[in-house]
This record gives sequence, structure tokens and C-alpha cells, in this order.
Amino acid sequence: MCGDRTEVNGTNGTTATPTLGGKPLHQRSPYESVGDFLSNVNNFKIIESTLREGEQFANAFFDTETKIKIATALSDFGVEYIELTSPVASQQSREDCEAICKLGLKSKILTHVRCTMEDAKIACDTGVDGVDLVIGTSSFLREHSHGKDMLAIEKAAIEVIEYVKSRGVEVRFSSEDSFRSDLVDLLQLYRAVDRIGVNRVGVADTVGCATPRQVYDLVRTLRGVVSCDIEIHLHNDTGCAIANAHAALEAGATHIDTSVLGIGERNGITSLGGLMARMMVGSREYVMSRYKLHKIKEIEDMVADAVQINIPFNNPITGFCAFTHKAGIHAKAILANPSTYEILKPEDYGLNRYVHFASRLTGWNAIKSRVEQLGLSMTDAQVKEVTAKIKQMADIRPLAIDDTDSIIRSFHLELQQK
Amino acid sequence: MCGDRTEVNGTNGTTATPTLGGKPLHQRSPYESVGDFLSNVNNFKIIESTLREGEQFANAFFDTETKIKIATALSDFGVEYIELTSPVASQQSREDCEAICKLGLKSKILTHVRCTMEDAKIACDTGVDGVDLVIGTSSFLREHSHGKDMLAIEKAAIEVIEYVKSRGVEVRFSSEDSFRSDLVDLLQLYRAVDRIGVNRVGVADTVGCATPRQVYDLVRTLRGVVSCDIEIHLHNDTGCAIANAHAALEAGATHIDTSVLGIGERNGITSLGGLMARMMVGSREYVMSRYKLHKIKEIEDMVADAVQINIPFNNPITGFCAFTHKAGIHAKAILANPSTYEILKPEDYGLNRYVHFASRLTGWNAIKSRVEQLGLSMTDAQVKEVTAKIKQMADIRPLAIDDTDSIIRSFHLELQQK
Repeated sequence: MCGDRTEVNGTNGTTATPTLGGKPLHQRSPYESVGDFLSNVNNFKIIESTLREGEQFANAFFDTETKIKIATALSDFGVEYIELTSPVASQQSREDCEAICKLGLKSKILTHVRCTMEDAKIACDTGVDGVDLVIGTSSFLREHSHGKDMLAIEKAAIEVIEYVKSRGVEVRFSSEDSFRSDLVDLLQLYRAVDRIGVNRVGVADTVGCATPRQVYDLVRTLRGVVSCDIEIHLHNDTGCAIANAHAALEAGATHIDTSVLGIGERNGITSLGGLMARMMVGSREYVMSRYKLHKIKEIEDMVADAVQINIPFNNPITGFCAFTHKAGIHAKAILANPSTYEILKPEDYGLNRYVHFASRLTGWNAIKSRVEQLGLSMTDAQVKEVTAKIKQMADIRPLAIDDTDSIIRSFHLELQQK
Repeated sequence: MCGDRTEVNGTNGTTATPTLGGKPLHQRSPYESVGDFLSNVNNFKIIESTLREGEQFANAFFDTETKIKIATALSDFGVEYIELTSPVASQQSREDCEAICKLGLKSKILTHVRCTMEDAKIACDTGVDGVDLVIGTSSFLREHSHGKDMLAIEKAAIEVIEYVKSRGVEVRFSSEDSFRSDLVDLLQLYRAVDRIGVNRVGVADTVGCATPRQVYDLVRTLRGVVSCDIEIHLHNDTGCAIANAHAALEAGATHIDTSVLGIGERNGITSLGGLMARMMVGSREYVMSRYKLHKIKEIEDMVADAVQINIPFNNPITGFCAFTHKAGIHAKAILANPSTYEILKPEDYGLNRYVHFASRLTGWNAIKSRVEQLGLSMTDAQVKEVTAKIKQMADIRPLAIDDTDSIIRSFHLELQQK
């Protein structure tokens, strides 16, 4: 559960150089996170909920064929769990859930139902590997949704969890809107279900209000109260769902809910690609060992197509300009060493880097690289001269690559003719 | 600088109930952030960089007219500062900078230049209120970009800062790629420029690698070293730029860099709208007192149009489904009280809420609300019956609102004819 342990000293009994995270202390960056006993940044599992939370996205309608295609792609990608819409939602939802269970995918199949005996029975009958139970615990939801008090919630939870366990099926119990629920009530409830052997408890920022520190604090507190796994489900209304997932792992969460492109209710949840981008920075080896990152673009395109949306221009990894460098000062350094302005490497995802040289912000290093790409030969002084011409033209109107290339070629021709 | 101070006791000398953030302790949510001496979540300023960082976005070409339109809109919105592309970048950049300075906007005008005397002189000559100096301090940039060592950087910084101050212009000094720079070198450099009276130091996550805890730790450390203001510039490569801005404010940063829709190099930086969404949750009064939130959609549309991109489907506040509720259980609660599943209120931004009822995830509460909107009269039992019909149809194909309305109307007609 805790893969990122601290080694304060060598473990071979000799008086070794002090190390941390496998490196001598003095070689580490002071900004590197200190691997601590709680952190699971190097040991987490993904609960992929495109086919549950994602189906709650305004534009989503997945027919059976699409669901099977998405589930298969996610399993091939390497997600540990795939969560499906409740079989109680509709007859087709139930049939699709049964069909996906029969595919024999590598990922475990979960379904997500209300915490009632009726729902739990139908869920277990579909053949899923696990059932995710959920109930609202905030005063808002207790008043305006189901109207139950905490004792009634605990009683219902225990009955349903014991039933699911009796069916030999993995079971998770989650509160809803955890960050607006009474903290003491919540901890009492989680402890009660942990004691009867629930596999996982879930914390949910259902409205997307939490900050990273709030997530860290709640998960850290919960980690001290329960011994089971901890799952976190984070909505993105205030743009913090990816950062909050990282904070939850640092505090000891074990499972992160994601959906492809983050689709879900309202603005959705932590996106699968966004989580990959975030975790690749600090946990590259772990991520590379489990997930087929080259497939991320294909999966995102598949889902975007199914729900008829465009990939956001600034989507992590696959946004059209994620690896495009424009300012002259950036281009110069990138051409010397891509790590200067890139924390992610496009080749890890089967993508390409692009140095944008057709603008007034360009510099002569970028143009020099383009001159070489075009197979032309110029001195640095000549490159600087043509760069000035390009910047002058780019001040007047937007330049396409063709335009820039024409300026370079005609300048080169002039040089030949001199 | 520190607007969110803790009151541990009443201040009137009597033995008052213990309070925190103006509320009796027992009435506060345990998740509410504790106002501390460092935090500026209720007292920050925005440095809006659409016309500088945003111009480095792959698609951006702003002509003079567009720049003036955007600057004017941002000033009307209420941002404290507007940052412009270096006048050294091109002749037109210089002329545009001079033109915007002459507009007499409420926002202060800044320009962003390399830390050299040549650049600084040209910058001061444009008539800006402030000059933002930047130099790369990471070993990557020192090796592959400008090649200077730290002593040379400090010497250049002091000379240029003193020059800008002598011109009576506000001055900021920022490192670049701060989170991959040597911490001790960085602190020494910041202390040196603070001592000679720089107005602001800047911390930059130029490659978008930082986590919220890393941002908190660095800003918190810096807060103990310098007495000037602290600005933070956060790239979004790993999707954490909004959360990191919040963490920086908690640690004592005073100024946040933003751009409209987050446009900038690669995947850009903290977005203006995203920052507003994040800060509205915990600092509603402060945000409402300074910024005209009803203008956010218009400004985003203007910039999206200028750089030819679509607003991302999941953009904070203005994404097309940011306030759309779909699942039956959500719809039921939202109809009773919108706060159940909304942390942001659409009316604060001049937008509307939408309850999506035309899907198989719908519930009878959502349909009941639609029946009422259509001016029809049905018992709850009848609404449940028509809901089942709608879910059945929605299992077969995607439903438009018209389809759902037709099912409701024909069912209602049948009832009349019975």
C-alpha cells in the first residue's frame, strides 16, 4: 500500500551515504517530494468511470457497442477497475453491465448503486467483481435528497455491505459530498464499515469545492481511522480535480476515480489523461510499468467522438498545442535541450514536439532550425537577417508555415544570386 | 497583505464566545480553511497576461485593435494589472504597448522583458506603470539558454532593477523555472533584490511541474525571506495551475498571473475564469467586491474568437455543461435546493442552470418538473409511469428535449381520453 518509503540510511548495515528515494541526499532536488510512509504516489490504482460518471455527462449516450469498445480499450490501457452505470437505471443498463462482465477483460468490473438491498441484489446478480455503494451524508443531501439520519445510514450500510460480502463480491462504501458532511459523523460511519470488513471506503468531492489542503487533511485523518483501502472521487467545478487527486495520494488514498477527458456531471471529474500527466512527473517508472500511454490519444478520440465534443485545446498531453513552443527564447532552449521547457516528453505518448517559428515572437534559433530542415545553408548572420524579415512580416498579419518558408526560400535565392 | 487573520477570541475585552473567521467556532464547518496570518485568499491581485503569455499561445496573433479591445475589457472586468509582450519583440509590439499605455485604463500596465539594460530602457520608454523582469535560474536554462552563473545573474538583476526604479517605474524581478532552480541560490537572489527595494519578486513554474504542496512550501519559505510582494506564474502542463494558485495564496503570495482561458506557451497557465471559480468558493465577498463576474463569458468569447479556439466543454463556469444536471438523483435534489449539487451559482455569472431530463438516467422528479413547465397536470403515480416510458425510449436511442416532450404530451393526451 505504501510504495514510496523513506530510506534514511543504507539498508545493508554498513555506514552508507544517507539516501532518500534511492539517491544520495545531496543529489536530490530540494523540491522533490519526500517519500513518506503515507504516500501512494508510487502505488495507486485507477477506477475508470467513463461508463458510469461519464454517462452522466450532458452529451453522453453510449449504446452497447460503444460501451464494449470503450471498456475493452480501457482494459488494454491498463486501468485496474472499470465502473459501470447502475443496472437499476434502466433495462439496457442492466443488460450492458452483464455483457461487459462476460467479456473477460483484464480490468475488474464494478457497478455503482445506491446503498439499498434492492439495488445491491440486482448489482450482484449481474456478475460484477465489485459493487460500489454510495449514500449522501451532507446535511444538504440528508435534507433535500434521501432524508435519512446518520444512524439510519449506518444501519443500512452495514446490512448492505454484509449482503454484498456474503455474495463473494468486493464492496466499497462511499459517502457523497464528503467535504460538506459532518466530520465526526463521517469518521464514525467509515470506522463502522471498516470494522465489518468493507474492502474500500470512498471519499467524494461531489460538488468540486475542495482544495488540495482540504483533501490532504481529510484523507490523512481518515487514513488514521480505517485500515481498508481509500478511494477518492473528485469533481472539477473549480479546476482542482487533478491536483486534488495527487494530494489524496500523498495523504494515503489508494484508488483514484477518473473518466476519459474527465466527462461527468456538470464539468466532470479527474481526467484519466490529466492524472497520467500529473503522475508521470514524479512517478514515471510506476506509471510506465502499468499503463500503455501510447493509447491515450486513441481512447480520448474514441470517447470525444462518442459524446460529440472537441478535445479541449489545452487538454493535458493531447491538447493540440501541449508540445508546441513559440517564443524565441523558448524555441532556442528547446532546440538545445527539450527538458528546458518540457516536463513531459511527447514521445512517451507517441506524439511529436513542434517548434512554432512563424510569428513575431520567433527568434533566430528557431529560424535556423527551420533553415536546416529545409536543407538550405546560411551563416548565422544571414539567418538573423531573414529572421528580422519574418518578424516584420508577422507584425502585419498572421503567418502560416508556408509563408515563412517562402520568405526563407526567397531570401536564400537572393543570396545565391548575389 | 494578510486579510484573513484569525480571531481566537472576541476583541472587545469581554469573555466572548471563541470565534474564527467571524463565526462562533461551533458553527464553522471543520473543512473551512483556517484563516492564518500568511494567507492572502481574501486579499490578492491579478496580473492578467493574455496580451503577453497569451500571445505565446500557438494560435495567437493579436492586431492592435484586438489588443485594445481585450485590454479595455480586462480593465472593465477589474484586473489590477495587464501585462503586455516585450516592446523588444517587434516594432509593432512596441507601438501597441505605447498605445495601450495611453488609453488611461483603470488597470496598471506592465511589460515583460529580459533582465538586461537594453530591454529595460526600451520598456521604460513606452510609458508603462511597471516592468516585469525575468531571467532563467534553473541549471537547464543556465546551461542551454543564457549561460550565466548566479553571481552574474545577481549583478545584472541589481543593475537593471536600480535603473527601472530610477525611472520611477514599478519593478518586479522573477526567476524562470523556479521549481527546478537551486533553492539556496534562488533565496539568495531574491533576498538581494528585496534589499534594494524591488516591488515584487516572481516565482514561476515555467514547465508546469509543481504540485500544490511544492508551491506552498516554496512560497512559504520565500515569504520568510523577503518583505516585498510575491507574484506567482503557473503553467498548466499537468493540470494543476488553478490549484497551485490557491496554494500559493495560502502560503502568502500576493499576485497571481492569469490569462483568459489560460492561453499561453504549450497548454498555458492559470486561467482567469478558473481562478474566479476557485476563489468564489472560499472568498466570495472579496471576489464580488473587485471583479465584474458577469463579464467573464463575454471576455472569454472575445479571446476564443481572436485565437480561433472553442471554449473547452469543461471550462470552469462557462463550459457548456458547467451547470447541467443529469442523473435522476442529482436532478431531484437540485430541484429541491440547487446548493445540493452546486458549489457555484450560475446567476453570479449571468448564466443559467439546466436540468437534463431526456436520458435513461433521468428520474421522476426531473420529469415532474418538466411536466409542470409544460403546464400539464399529472399525479405522482402518472409521472412515474411516463418516466418509465421515457427511460425505455432513451435506452434505444439518444433523446432530444422534443422527443421527451412528445412522450409526455401523448401520455397526457391518453390520460385525458381515458
